[in-house]
Amino acid sequence: MKVLILGGAGMVGRNLAIRLASDGTLGGQPIEALTLFDVVAADVQGSAHMRVSAVTGDISDRATVDRLVADRPDAIFHLAAIVSGEAEADFDKGYRINLDGTRNLFEAIRAQDGYHPRVVYTSSIAVFGAPFPEAIGDEFITAPMTSYGTQKMIGELLLNDYSRRGIFDGIGIRLPTIAVRPGKPNKAASGFFSGIIREPLAGQDAVLPVDDDVRHWVASPASATGFLLHAATMDTAPLGARRCLTMPGLSVTVGEMIAALGEVAGPEAVARIRRQPDPVIRGIVAGWPRNFDAARAAGFGFAADASFQDIIRAHIRDSEAAQ
Amino acid sequence: MKVLILGGAGMVGRNLAIRLASDGTLGGQPIEALTLFDVVAADVQGSAHMRVSAVTGDISDRATVDRLVADRPDAIFHLAAIVSGEAEADFDKGYRINLDGTRNLFEAIRAQDGYHPRVVYTSSIAVFGAPFPEAIGDEFITAPMTSYGTQKMIGELLLNDYSRRGIFDGIGIRLPTIAVRPGKPNKAASGFFSGIIREPLAGQDAVLPVDDDVRHWVASPASATGFLLHAATMDTAPLGARRCLTMPGLSVTVGEMIAALGEVAGPEAVARIRRQPDPVIRGIVAGWPRNFDAARAAGFGFAADASFQDIIRAHIRDSEAAQ
Ligand SMILES: NC(=O)c1ccc[n+]([C@@H]2O[C@H](COP(=O)([O-])OP(=O)(O)OC[C@H]3O[C@@H](n4cnc5c(N)ncnc54)[C@H](O)[C@@H]3O)[C@@H](O)[C@H]2O)c1
Ligand SMILES: NC(=O)c1ccc[n+]([C@@H]2O[C@H](COP(=O)([O-])OP(=O)(O)OC[C@H]3O[C@@H](n4cnc5c(N)ncnc54)[C@H](O)[C@@H]3O)[C@@H](O)[C@H]2O)c1
Repeated sequence: MKVLILGGAGMVGRNLAIRLASDGTLGGQPIEALTLFDVVAADVQGSAHMRVSAVTGDISDRATVDRLVADRPDAIFHLAAIVSGEAEADFDKGYRINLDGTRNLFEAIRAQDGYHPRVVYTSSIAVFGAPFPEAIGDEFITAPMTSYGTQKMIGELLLNDYSRRGIFDGIGIRLPTIAVRPGKPNKAASGFFSGIIREPLAGQDAVLPVDDDVRHWVASPASATGFLLHAATMDTAPLGARRCLTMPGLSVTVGEMIAALGEVAGPEAVARIRRQPDPVIRGIVAGWPRNFDAARAAGFGFAADASFQDIIRAHIRDSEAAQ
Repeated sequence: MKVLILGGAGMVGRNLAIRLASDGTLGGQPIEALTLFDVVAADVQGSAHMRVSAVTGDISDRATVDRLVADRPDAIFHLAAIVSGEAEADFDKGYRINLDGTRNLFEAIRAQDGYHPRVVYTSSIAVFGAPFPEAIGDEFITAPMTSYGTQKMIGELLLNDYSRRGIFDGIGIRLPTIAVRPGKPNKAASGFFSGIIREPLAGQDAVLPVDDDVRHWVASPASATGFLLHAATMDTAPLGARRCLTMPGLSVTVGEMIAALGEVAGPEAVARIRRQPDPVIRGIVAGWPRNFDAARAAGFGFAADASFQDIIRAHIRDSEAAQ
């Protein structure tokens, strides 16, 4: 089979590509070609059995997307996006990439006759907005409070409609905030959730722009890869018309994260965190969800991390392996 | 003040225009110019104090919309749309008019410096999809099951985001199905809800494509006008980030509608209804909401009709007045 990852050079996309290249299969079927599309060149190694190619381009250019899709990949992972901070700062860019880009993909698929790929779309818990119940259930209103959340939600609606129409077989997964995010910080307003763990573990100072009692919904990079693989291979028929699911996660406060860091890495790590309140980030985060009851996803076999300590330990293992 | 109605030649738009022309004011302020934009020419009379002009054009043409908005109307009613049946039959046309057209309007407003009009957008209960609770509350998930509902919901999301950004002062009202719709049937799949009352009252046969126990959420044309005027003049600040409201309505079954018709117009009228089940319409209607708890809108002062008998009597009065 052929697999295409849009946003294949990003954090989640790269992890997925490495996993697919190592597995060599998706849902039991051998992968003969894996294409990683992104504005920047992805660098993932292939193997004797699997050709991995990096294609650079912009998803907001329809002709580029048409060319990609003309290859008729059996599974498409659509992860290409600009994240919350950047979509909020640049109105036009956010709509162009996150909305028009997504439409370009869906329309390019529609333009192919007799083609019906599985499409896995990464949505976000940013589709929800305050005020919230104690735990957000699967029938709670999606009322985004950022342009990013708006664009992700529009993508969900389009995915449902195109799937209902039989244009492709779509599934949307609302990822929790992925922590601990490896590598350099990105422009997501949620970046500090990873920074306060990653930087101290690397012997560097980290800035905490919000209060310790801020509660958030997180999952590890490995969980994100697991969600994507499961979404690509599960039976979508039981989803009915509602093809977008809130993924399971851990509901933890910043204080609990810091305590877990202390437990795993000691007080020197904790001492690296500098509290420096930022009213803009505080404001954005105040509108974010804190806790979910992700019963539907659990019922469909998606599973979260066991504890935040485990997430930190996995991050330490991954960082050592990457050296 | 200047008022613009997009879709001003349609059923709801025309009623609103007649009311504005007769009131001469909106929210206590004199209207000096009322522009009715539509693909077909609207024919509403002005007065010595108010210039009424009909402009024909297509909302999916950005330059046309730019020209309209350059006039900087203080209040814009955005009612231009193709309805459910047509948007389902013609995928491209639905997205072009209902989605791209709406974006054209919002972008045209954004392109004007220092301009911040009130924008009233007519959404629909088609933003909801089965399965439903007994009565759909204000925090229930919007999960459309038609392309029309998808397009309306995307419009709601954009309206919220553009309003949050301070681009305009938007409010979306989810109209119940408007019955009794005067004049000729349109292409809405809900057309029969009006047809089974309107046609018999005019001495003509009507076709009923669904079962008598089908329950639906309706409001009169006069209520729709009332909702629009209230939305255009109310204080939007208390709406917060959720600027789209389910309008109040009556939850009635087809059987109850027919009984009300018998009460008001006698058994001869009822005898005009021919039961002719249509599996396509049945299928569409099966995914439609039946009952709401429109508490938020009620709290903001929106009020529904008292009974379906009243709706029929109002329709009879209006038809006589129109002759
Ligand atoms: N990481 C998280 O916490 C999180 C949470 C919820 C949802 N998501 C979503 O998951 C997906 C992957 O997230 P990530 O953390 O890997 O983000 P990322 O920023 O690391 O990766 C996104 C990739 O998309 C690429 N991209 C941006 N604009 C593009 C364009 N115009 N054309 C082609 N590619 C373009 C970027 O270059 C980047 O490599 C995104 O859609 C994101 O919105 C992530
Ligand atoms: N009537 C209802 O039961 C109901 C229920 C819910 C929502 N709504 C919404 O309320 C609004 C008005 O409904 P209505 O019953 O008057 O519908 P209508 O069909 O009578 O009026 C819509 C008008 O929009 C115009 N229009 C269509 N395409 C256009 C384009 N490309 N450019 C400019 N104008 C265009 C049509 O010519 C028509 O005059 C619509 O947005 C509809 O979706 C109506």
